[in-house]
Amino acid sequence: MSDRIDVAILAATGSVGQRFVQLLAGHPWFRIAELVASDRSAGKRYAEAVNWRISAAPPEEVRDLVVKHIEEPINSPIVFSALPGGVAGPIEEALAAEGKKVFTNARDHRMDPDVPLLIPEVNPDHARAIERQRQLRGWREGFIVANPNCSTIHLVLALKPIHDAFGIERGIVTTLQASSGAGYPGVPSLDLIDNVIPYIGGEEEKIEAESRKILGRWIDGTFEDAPIVLSAHCNRVPVRDGHLETVSLDLHRSATPAEVIDVLRAFRALPQELELPSAPRHPVIVLEEPDRPQPVLDRDAERGMASVVGRVRPCSVFDIRFVVLGHNTIRGAAGASVLNAELFYREGLL
Amino acid sequence: MSDRIDVAILAATGSVGQRFVQLLAGHPWFRIAELVASDRSAGKRYAEAVNWRISAAPPEEVRDLVVKHIEEPINSPIVFSALPGGVAGPIEEALAAEGKKVFTNARDHRMDPDVPLLIPEVNPDHARAIERQRQLRGWREGFIVANPNCSTIHLVLALKPIHDAFGIERGIVTTLQASSGAGYPGVPSLDLIDNVIPYIGGEEEKIEAESRKILGRWIDGTFEDAPIVLSAHCNRVPVRDGHLETVSLDLHRSATPAEVIDVLRAFRALPQELELPSAPRHPVIVLEEPDRPQPVLDRDAERGMASVVGRVRPCSVFDIRFVVLGHNTIRGAAGASVLNAELFYREGLL
Amino acid sequence: MSDRIDVAILAATGSVGQRFVQLLAGHPWFRIAELVASDRSAGKRYAEAVNWRISAAPPEEVRDLVVKHIEEPINSPIVFSALPGGVAGPIEEALAAEGKKVFTNARDHRMDPDVPLLIPEVNPDHARAIERQRQLRGWREGFIVANPNCSTIHLVLALKPIHDAFGIERGIVTTLQASSGAGYPGVPSLDLIDNVIPYIGGEEEKIEAESRKILGRWIDGTFEDAPIVLSAHCNRVPVRDGHLETVSLDLHRSATPAEVIDVLRAFRALPQELELPSAPRHPVIVLEEPDRPQPVLDRDAERGMASVVGRVRPCSVFDIRFVVLGHNTIRGAAGASVLNAELFYREGLL
Amino acid sequence: MSDRIDVAILAATGSVGQRFVQLLAGHPWFRIAELVASDRSAGKRYAEAVNWRISAAPPEEVRDLVVKHIEEPINSPIVFSALPGGVAGPIEEALAAEGKKVFTNARDHRMDPDVPLLIPEVNPDHARAIERQRQLRGWREGFIVANPNCSTIHLVLALKPIHDAFGIERGIVTTLQASSGAGYPGVPSLDLIDNVIPYIGGEEEKIEAESRKILGRWIDGTFEDAPIVLSAHCNRVPVRDGHLETVSLDLHRSATPAEVIDVLRAFRALPQELELPSAPRHPVIVLEEPDRPQPVLDRDAERGMASVVGRVRPCSVFDIRFVVLGHNTIRGAAGASVLNAELFYREGLL
Repeated sequence: MSDRIDVAILAATGSVGQRFVQLLAGHPWFRIAELVASDRSAGKRYAEAVNWRISAAPPEEVRDLVVKHIEEPINSPIVFSALPGGVAGPIEEALAAEGKKVFTNARDHRMDPDVPLLIPEVNPDHARAIERQRQLRGWREGFIVANPNCSTIHLVLALKPIHDAFGIERGIVTTLQASSGAGYPGVPSLDLIDNVIPYIGGEEEKIEAESRKILGRWIDGTFEDAPIVLSAHCNRVPVRDGHLETVSLDLHRSATPAEVIDVLRAFRALPQELELPSAPRHPVIVLEEPDRPQPVLDRDAERGMASVVGRVRPCSVFDIRFVVLGHNTIRGAAGASVLNAELFYREGLL
Repeated sequence: MSDRIDVAILAATGSVGQRFVQLLAGHPWFRIAELVASDRSAGKRYAEAVNWRISAAPPEEVRDLVVKHIEEPINSPIVFSALPGGVAGPIEEALAAEGKKVFTNARDHRMDPDVPLLIPEVNPDHARAIERQRQLRGWREGFIVANPNCSTIHLVLALKPIHDAFGIERGIVTTLQASSGAGYPGVPSLDLIDNVIPYIGGEEEKIEAESRKILGRWIDGTFEDAPIVLSAHCNRVPVRDGHLETVSLDLHRSATPAEVIDVLRAFRALPQELELPSAPRHPVIVLEEPDRPQPVLDRDAERGMASVVGRVRPCSVFDIRFVVLGHNTIRGAAGASVLNAELFYREGLL
Repeated sequence: MSDRIDVAILAATGSVGQRFVQLLAGHPWFRIAELVASDRSAGKRYAEAVNWRISAAPPEEVRDLVVKHIEEPINSPIVFSALPGGVAGPIEEALAAEGKKVFTNARDHRMDPDVPLLIPEVNPDHARAIERQRQLRGWREGFIVANPNCSTIHLVLALKPIHDAFGIERGIVTTLQASSGAGYPGVPSLDLIDNVIPYIGGEEEKIEAESRKILGRWIDGTFEDAPIVLSAHCNRVPVRDGHLETVSLDLHRSATPAEVIDVLRAFRALPQELELPSAPRHPVIVLEEPDRPQPVLDRDAERGMASVVGRVRPCSVFDIRFVVLGHNTIRGAAGASVLNAELFYREGLL
Repeated sequence: MSDRIDVAILAATGSVGQRFVQLLAGHPWFRIAELVASDRSAGKRYAEAVNWRISAAPPEEVRDLVVKHIEEPINSPIVFSALPGGVAGPIEEALAAEGKKVFTNARDHRMDPDVPLLIPEVNPDHARAIERQRQLRGWREGFIVANPNCSTIHLVLALKPIHDAFGIERGIVTTLQASSGAGYPGVPSLDLIDNVIPYIGGEEEKIEAESRKILGRWIDGTFEDAPIVLSAHCNRVPVRDGHLETVSLDLHRSATPAEVIDVLRAFRALPQELELPSAPRHPVIVLEEPDRPQPVLDRDAERGMASVVGRVRPCSVFDIRFVVLGHNTIRGAAGASVLNAELFYREGLL
């Protein structure tokens, strides 16, 4: 693994940052060279700076890395950003201008007209937008590639094969989202013991808009939204990890549950073909037990990189309804950007 | 309170039975005279037989009542039934045949073509079906009146004023239901710690069918369903009490959120007019804070007898969307039947 | 209620502050005249400033009170302080110097050699220390009276009658403390979903030291600690309200469980005799069911003002062991100071 | 792995049975040949019979095994028993009489005067009791070896090195036990949402008695208890897996926290020396962060086979106090019996 490419992780001590560390430790192509965080952590050993919440302790190989301050220069050519929305935007632009390849989980650039909002199984061709991005912004080597919101990504992984086969016109989605989606400290325990919060600021708009962009086309140097209308209701529930979503779809061409299950199960795409290291063998798993998927049982399917669908059945109002579940900080965040970077590596774009 | 009418409670030691006891203790018109339960409890004092889960101890006035066996004769003219579905049907029929007025929370007779599925604020005229019921079944004094499923009732309380004002054509609903809805012992803790179960057997069908019956008409001796199509996704979440539901509605005549809020807030009906003892002053409460209603804060609104609506906003797919929450074992079960009985009392039907 | 005494509540928007508001709204002797909070809240109506977490909405009578800034002058002669430890100290002293009667829940002055750490059922004579306090500090009218830590108070209520009857030499205590004890936002949900935190900073020391002071004597102008040695292990568990403690006691004179239960049940003290408005009829309730007390069932006993003991049984190592439970933000915090103020009122010390 | 020894698992579909399956699938020395369960499951494929609760699905190699009925003959020479207490006793005896080597997690024979209650790191010499057991019971090849209760085992792993170094005289223990310790369905969710149950039937007695037997001696054909007196308080908390225990110890020879940490960290025993496949490298891990161990972070230490100690500090009443945590269904149940069997295999006793 001597010629692995150095990578930096921004906001490496946070909830998503920890997942980046976990997923990139021991990665065959990338080597964690720099961990970047805020004032409070900078200058400390990572093991001291981080309040590691994933398991007993951070991976051996990063424990002694000294955390850099966000204002220190970054040397690695690749940057993974777990910066919070609002803060991320200008920092990521400055890094791209310096020539860094930025793979970000932040919301700030997701809807930019020249930034790919990428899911390698769904819209790998959107990666071509970086040429236009460089042209427009005057960047020579750097770029910004974003991954979608944690609820959007699992929804879209399930929608893609259905859309290709039957055409989706409209959909109504309700999410039951895990606490880790709000980071740490995030949601107070008094808000989630014996309770549900029926609101997550900005989340419904993200799901509705991001899905259209991802399922749309990159054509003539511009993104053309897919003509799909979605309506989302977002809720926070007392679960650590794993977002669950109920979905009702109005299709262009009606389909039986068996047909939908078939296309979901048959779904394979570029990451599977290229055998990218983080790619799930099956991007979408379909369960037929009546009470699945469940967060505690299914969120770790394919090391947290798959979306798990269940309860595929006819909808009394639309054509079809089902439930989809996925790990929100792995495939829903850090794992999404790692897979994006793997696609770029394998396609020679790094 | 010397001339209160004696009532019996069937399955009085269970989860819903305990709520009947709580709500009827000290009732101005009814007096708990008989508590009926299964083999294990019969013959014991109620305080010994019950594993009381509502508060520290059952109300003083029932502690020393000796629990009757379900096969012993019942003397009270009014019977409240918290019997489990499947078991309830024949027992309730036998009691009605004997002349008892049976108010039941069980599902068994809810969809019978001659049994009112009653919410006093919504379809009080359905009460007239008991004449036909007696005629058809050859009963002279007895009857069966059912209350809807715990999720249906709060949904329909919110739908009624909207339907009257704007006409509902279709709706998609996702429920986040509390553990107490499954009774005790009910859902194992291993299924609800850090988890959600996206399935409740039979619940989706109940919501879809019961709503149409309740919002429909009693006409020419038969129930005519309302022409509303609903699709429900039901989930169990780690909450003690309080079912929360997300709702998207396609209306006949489109409406703004402000108009919907107005009709919900203006909603008053017969129980409010008659000032029935258990009637909430406002059957539907509307909150405007973005993150409400929440189970832990709002389930006890109007002593658990109101439905609490929030997040009324336009739906990107249909016309309107919102969240509704209500206490599932008070207004959603025992309180519903108590209010039904109060309506019958006040209307001189007992 | 026209001649109620005006009171101010400091940190009125926080977790304990909300309980003060709840308990003092409609109080027969005191009237909430001033609500004081920090920058963010000052100048707003209380209903807008507070994120009310106790029930659906704050009491009618305080909703329109405009929140004062902590630096504005306070007019009420009585001040209840829910200020956080560390901040409370100098503010409370300044107010007492101005002549205010300060009843505080903060830890800052609890162990001061001239401040009564008061539980009206346990050490009402400690109230006399305020004379010495005024003398030492040069205060004419004002004073500071503290209530103990939320775990200490329920422990000591159970220890007091046992100590009086049998003499306690040593005790080992493990607490299972509720989330609300840490305030709001307090403990992150990611720390309490499917988890326990076996540490609460400073809590073990407080329990050990405060108990000795409270059970000790005020003699010759000084507090003399009770010769009792305690060892505490403190844990945070996923419970909203209600601290539960397991207790093993080494007694001077050995006692059977029946004898211990007898002295606990017979326990009545000054607040009961004086019929103070917030006094529980029974300061200590003893349950004999093997699996009680439980937070969800027993924390509201006597409106949250009682301590509930269960599982009284011989200890294999010491003499006796049992479990004690109590509401941590009612009797364990705000209710404790309200009862202290009621004692002072009734004794003519206000 | 062609010459692995066939093993049968009794009660293979239950909570502990599933852990046996998980731990024995792919085991280098043992091969799961028979899965045995009750009426309801017998005759079905294991994948259909089991409600697998550990992860998404049972291991590949057992999915198609047809579950045997408990009354069918067993062919494997080794039997792992996850039978419930009360039921296990006579079945296990009958199997041992037939010549089976029975490793049981059930409580029934644990305190028998000729049955080793074995923790390979603590009392491997107790294994010799099986000679006497055969002699007394007239068994030629078979035997019964028990593992301790799930709370006892983690406690004793921490006590052993301390006892060897300093001598333990007395100890007071409070447990915070996970839901999975009660099996499935086990504890109702209504008992654990926002709640704690301060009682687990029989558990306190087991901890107190089993610890003395395990830390005692096998001498002259009889078990001699260690002269240690323990007092336990047992509680059930809303945690899936991982029992946490607070411990205060009175030592023969007093010790500083640093000395205690040293002996815990230095602790290695026969399983480590023999490099048994399931042995943790460190039977006891000591953490020094003030708020550890925590169930969600530390229960999987050394694949769930280690005990994790933290907060080692002086006890104000006794000499030393600390917290110990361990996985209750791995090292606390199935993993314990697997390690026992590995010891017997390696010592040539199978």
